[in-house]
Amino acid sequence: MLDERIRTAVIGYGYWGPNLVRNFVNSGSARVVAVSDLDLAKLAASKRLHSEIETTSDFRDVLKNPNIDAVAIATPVHTHYELALSALKAGKHVLVEKPLTPKSDQASRLVEEAARRDLVLMVDHTFLYTPAVQKIRELLQNGTLGEPYYYDSIRSSLGLFQNDCNVIWDLAVHDLSIIMYILNETPITVSATGSSHVAGAPENMAHVTLFFESSCVAHVSVNWLSPIKVRQTFIGGSRKMIVYDDVEPTEKVKVYDKGITLAGSPEKTHQLRIGYRAGDMWAPHIAQKEALQTEVQHFVDCIRNGKVPISGGSSGLKVVQILEAASRSIKEQGKPIRLKPIGPISRCA
Amino acid sequence: MLDERIRTAVIGYGYWGPNLVRNFVNSGSARVVAVSDLDLAKLAASKRLHSEIETTSDFRDVLKNPNIDAVAIATPVHTHYELALSALKAGKHVLVEKPLTPKSDQASRLVEEAARRDLVLMVDHTFLYTPAVQKIRELLQNGTLGEPYYYDSIRSSLGLFQNDCNVIWDLAVHDLSIIMYILNETPITVSATGSSHVAGAPENMAHVTLFFESSCVAHVSVNWLSPIKVRQTFIGGSRKMIVYDDVEPTEKVKVYDKGITLAGSPEKTHQLRIGYRAGDMWAPHIAQKEALQTEVQHFVDCIRNGKVPISGGSSGLKVVQILEAASRSIKEQGKPIRLKPIGPISRCA
Amino acid sequence: MLDERIRTAVIGYGYWGPNLVRNFVNSGSARVVAVSDLDLAKLAASKRLHSEIETTSDFRDVLKNPNIDAVAIATPVHTHYELALSALKAGKHVLVEKPLTPKSDQASRLVEEAARRDLVLMVDHTFLYTPAVQKIRELLQNGTLGEPYYYDSIRSSLGLFQNDCNVIWDLAVHDLSIIMYILNETPITVSATGSSHVAGAPENMAHVTLFFESSCVAHVSVNWLSPIKVRQTFIGGSRKMIVYDDVEPTEKVKVYDKGITLAGSPEKTHQLRIGYRAGDMWAPHIAQKEALQTEVQHFVDCIRNGKVPISGGSSGLKVVQILEAASRSIKEQGKPIRLKPIGPISRCA
Amino acid sequence: MLDERIRTAVIGYGYWGPNLVRNFVNSGSARVVAVSDLDLAKLAASKRLHSEIETTSDFRDVLKNPNIDAVAIATPVHTHYELALSALKAGKHVLVEKPLTPKSDQASRLVEEAARRDLVLMVDHTFLYTPAVQKIRELLQNGTLGEPYYYDSIRSSLGLFQNDCNVIWDLAVHDLSIIMYILNETPITVSATGSSHVAGAPENMAHVTLFFESSCVAHVSVNWLSPIKVRQTFIGGSRKMIVYDDVEPTEKVKVYDKGITLAGSPEKTHQLRIGYRAGDMWAPHIAQKEALQTEVQHFVDCIRNGKVPISGGSSGLKVVQILEAASRSIKEQGKPIRLKPIGPISRCA
Repeated sequence: MLDERIRTAVIGYGYWGPNLVRNFVNSGSARVVAVSDLDLAKLAASKRLHSEIETTSDFRDVLKNPNIDAVAIATPVHTHYELALSALKAGKHVLVEKPLTPKSDQASRLVEEAARRDLVLMVDHTFLYTPAVQKIRELLQNGTLGEPYYYDSIRSSLGLFQNDCNVIWDLAVHDLSIIMYILNETPITVSATGSSHVAGAPENMAHVTLFFESSCVAHVSVNWLSPIKVRQTFIGGSRKMIVYDDVEPTEKVKVYDKGITLAGSPEKTHQLRIGYRAGDMWAPHIAQKEALQTEVQHFVDCIRNGKVPISGGSSGLKVVQILEAASRSIKEQGKPIRLKPIGPISRCA
Repeated sequence: MLDERIRTAVIGYGYWGPNLVRNFVNSGSARVVAVSDLDLAKLAASKRLHSEIETTSDFRDVLKNPNIDAVAIATPVHTHYELALSALKAGKHVLVEKPLTPKSDQASRLVEEAARRDLVLMVDHTFLYTPAVQKIRELLQNGTLGEPYYYDSIRSSLGLFQNDCNVIWDLAVHDLSIIMYILNETPITVSATGSSHVAGAPENMAHVTLFFESSCVAHVSVNWLSPIKVRQTFIGGSRKMIVYDDVEPTEKVKVYDKGITLAGSPEKTHQLRIGYRAGDMWAPHIAQKEALQTEVQHFVDCIRNGKVPISGGSSGLKVVQILEAASRSIKEQGKPIRLKPIGPISRCA
Repeated sequence: MLDERIRTAVIGYGYWGPNLVRNFVNSGSARVVAVSDLDLAKLAASKRLHSEIETTSDFRDVLKNPNIDAVAIATPVHTHYELALSALKAGKHVLVEKPLTPKSDQASRLVEEAARRDLVLMVDHTFLYTPAVQKIRELLQNGTLGEPYYYDSIRSSLGLFQNDCNVIWDLAVHDLSIIMYILNETPITVSATGSSHVAGAPENMAHVTLFFESSCVAHVSVNWLSPIKVRQTFIGGSRKMIVYDDVEPTEKVKVYDKGITLAGSPEKTHQLRIGYRAGDMWAPHIAQKEALQTEVQHFVDCIRNGKVPISGGSSGLKVVQILEAASRSIKEQGKPIRLKPIGPISRCA
Repeated sequence: MLDERIRTAVIGYGYWGPNLVRNFVNSGSARVVAVSDLDLAKLAASKRLHSEIETTSDFRDVLKNPNIDAVAIATPVHTHYELALSALKAGKHVLVEKPLTPKSDQASRLVEEAARRDLVLMVDHTFLYTPAVQKIRELLQNGTLGEPYYYDSIRSSLGLFQNDCNVIWDLAVHDLSIIMYILNETPITVSATGSSHVAGAPENMAHVTLFFESSCVAHVSVNWLSPIKVRQTFIGGSRKMIVYDDVEPTEKVKVYDKGITLAGSPEKTHQLRIGYRAGDMWAPHIAQKEALQTEVQHFVDCIRNGKVPISGGSSGLKVVQILEAASRSIKEQGKPIRLKPIGPISRCA
């Protein structure tokens, strides 16, 4: 009998790599053939947990191996482009940690390469695979919330300052992927402000506003220098409103039957035509399933069945474009930056 | 024996007027001679509670009365300028509800008039007189927080939509006055974004960033369309950080001994020189005193002793300037607007 | 045209009396003819607010007045019996502050007197008239919760120590009335423990367990010496469970679709037959209506239409019986005390 | 050079055993020689993680092994007595999961055996080794709280129903060990009530009151059938009060400068002599150290240096005595049960 499991390798066995290995191993539909890392101690740690997995300190061994179908890249951001491009050229399907690349032209190049070779290029935007975000998307897509009005999020804590990128590349990246996923819409203009409180270091605090063709607006507040951890998102719609608090152990998503009601013709706006509605609150049960498990199964499904990933290369590219534009806006104290439209998304990427 | 209480009148007896009357009456250092309102039913309500206070539907009766030293104006914003100017010209000290005026040139004119006549012009920025804000200012001014890094605030609820001004004139106005009071610094540039979810109505949601000469930054998020009431402010400093939650019945102000520590020279910034500190949290006892009582006593003190009010005309003017600039920035999707510096503040106003 | 409003008088104008007057006045279906208090300053305060209401320092004036249909008694507990009995004998309907009397035989005597004279005797168990408790009763009575399993409540704060009664007469009294109202069942045995932390003073902390004929059990924890205010009740049922938090400004009542499921025959209990269910949470909208308004309207309705009050004399008597038994049990460190059954409840009381 | 690490074995490799192994391995001062379990699959799991540790399905192999100094027993409660007694007789120091035994005479027998052989007998009352409980003990022992008034705790969740013991043996056991540790006092009388909501199953909900020689009182509320997880303890003292919330990720311990003040002589108690004090709140930083790590190091330290464990056999015995008495009281609906005093505690146990 044939073993039909997808054969994977993980490049980078630092903080996130072991989670990727564990989830591929547990998925049932994939197996891990090899792990690569420059650090021999990390390879030894992999061996201790998974004696059956080959280890190598040279990622090229992985790419040369004809018995590997797909690679997951969990290395520092500045190495993503080179590694992913090499892997695609070697004919491997690729899953890359977020953000996809440090520059949008690199991301664009990866998307093209994957499309040309008909390979899956997927970005590890893990939040999209959490039961909470999937529930929120469902509530938006099935009309429960009505017309979306806004997404307003805070993501802050006393976080690890990074020295090669500012806080939006570390934290806002999550919200950008969530926003486009749940709204099914990409922003057209971005305005952002930010500030650094360590001389010479990148911005540790920022606020980003995204404008859309529709009247919906998104705002993301991120901060590495907050006394408490906050992961709170408000989503307003014409029929319902959501408070999504990811710090809550349960009841992460609360749906409020609250809002305004409009009477009369929209032309003659005056105070009297606005009514206020306060109804029940409802917290749907959110499953406890690990997001990364859902994600690796989706990656395997896309490889097997030629599906376009939820967090494919194009959406990874769009996130990088917004991060670039937001960084530019920050340098100019909030000046709005128009985003380039992205063409139709090709298969797989 | 002489009655040395300041003789006041209250113009406008709607929502806020009765609170002003009650607090003047209870202050011990003032008495209320007259109440004026266009609505006879409201004057009757005043009579029922305070039979000794004269009532009139013509505010000019109040201004002509030589037995009145000071007037408090609690009428719609668009009437503030005319009423306050008339009162100053009639030689009365003036306390005006916030915001001072709908336009900065009007506010400027009032400040000049008060200065020329050596009269007190004060704006009812009530939050400055709350025990919580006074405690926060104390913690900043006495160095407990160290160098201020940021002020980041959310003020939202399912609020009353107004049709003659956008949400920042209604809600951000509080934060602007608090920011300048506790930081003792005025912003130099403002960037703001906002959006309206009712066709033809003013913006019901906005985000405002204020830049200062120092590296401190302030951000204010306001929303009339939030499913829950939020009044939360994060204040970061180099030595301590504050979370101020005005919705909490007690423990409104929490001081965290948390932050980063820097080692090495500021020129060579790299990740290793940043350390993280997590210590105790401390919630100073906050008195329950009504802010308006403190405020009216301060107004009387300024009149009697020629003091400059904490929330004098100049600070009211600065708030209006920022609101104007922020409204302009909103129209241009976040474009930064440079604020005009205000000259030295004259006595009293 | 006839004025058909019920003519009331309020005896006792201390903390609660003014609320009674205000709510009778606002009810539309009653008017207040007279207020009685021993303290002339309090009568003057009444006159200032309600010049049309007669005042007297002798409650007998009220009882003699043929133009008064009903009296509300808001005086110290030790005076309730004498005042209520005199009022009933004078032919007045009576509403008494909780607890009805300090002794159960006195309460019993009042119930008899009211029944004999066909007068309404009602106790001011205000919590029964709150929208939150009414919603909870509805959820129990309509089967939403399934079979009731338990009521477990905490009611504590840094409270006013009383010197003539222990903490259960002050705080547990609320829960006892709520328990019997929402469960529609009276307890048969009580066990209670308590302790005093001020030498010579009554118990300031106590825990009371109530046993019923059914398998439902109730527990009430009360404390005058708690650092924070807690008003939290857990109610378990076979189908749903409730957390009722009265300190919450909104979302006071949360209904959890959680619990256990039983498989197999009840005779062969072993672990495997118990399953666990975790579903949605739902917080029904709770109206903001003042409980005392609902209560006085109910009092008037009972008088007019010969209805038995929700918090009639018999339920007030039952509460006093339980408080007496619990106090006895406290003296004996938790010894269970059997409660005397109460006969069928006569009309009106 | 000699390896001076204590040589341990772990009997029972189910839920808790792997944690014991991991913490012994990481302690640096012990090593694990063998693991024993009846389930071969569990032994295989141990081998996978720790190939150097011997495994056996017969615990007698462990007891016969002269190269083992100490054993940790993590098996079902009904096996504790036989296993611990055999281990002591084999000359091993013993660490037993809580509760020590199902019966107090068994616990007593173990204490005697350990004392006679001069071996360490320790119970795994893990909570005593948490940074939070150690901080609370410090605040009580150094006088910060003043005279202790009460300990009042809630420990509930939708928990795993057990079929061989009621809820107090599973949950209240934690509080009993904490109470005696932080108060340094043992109770003299217990009253408890409880109820079962599954026909034929042990009580799933109970309330236990403990009386002491001093005026301090303790109350513990436990529930396997709660819709939400609650781990909240209130501790009142004459100078300060604590709220300890173990569900909080940080700020688990809050110290309130609140309470009452007494004026005048204690003989003449009346309301006027009680004053109320409301001051600051303070949340000391609580370290994140794993309790079991502290515990195994303490076990090793007791073995090496002949110290009496914080959670020695005698305290384990006392906990079992209280659980027995509370279970008896539950059968009699709260009837107070006098606890037998325990003689002076011998060395080591």
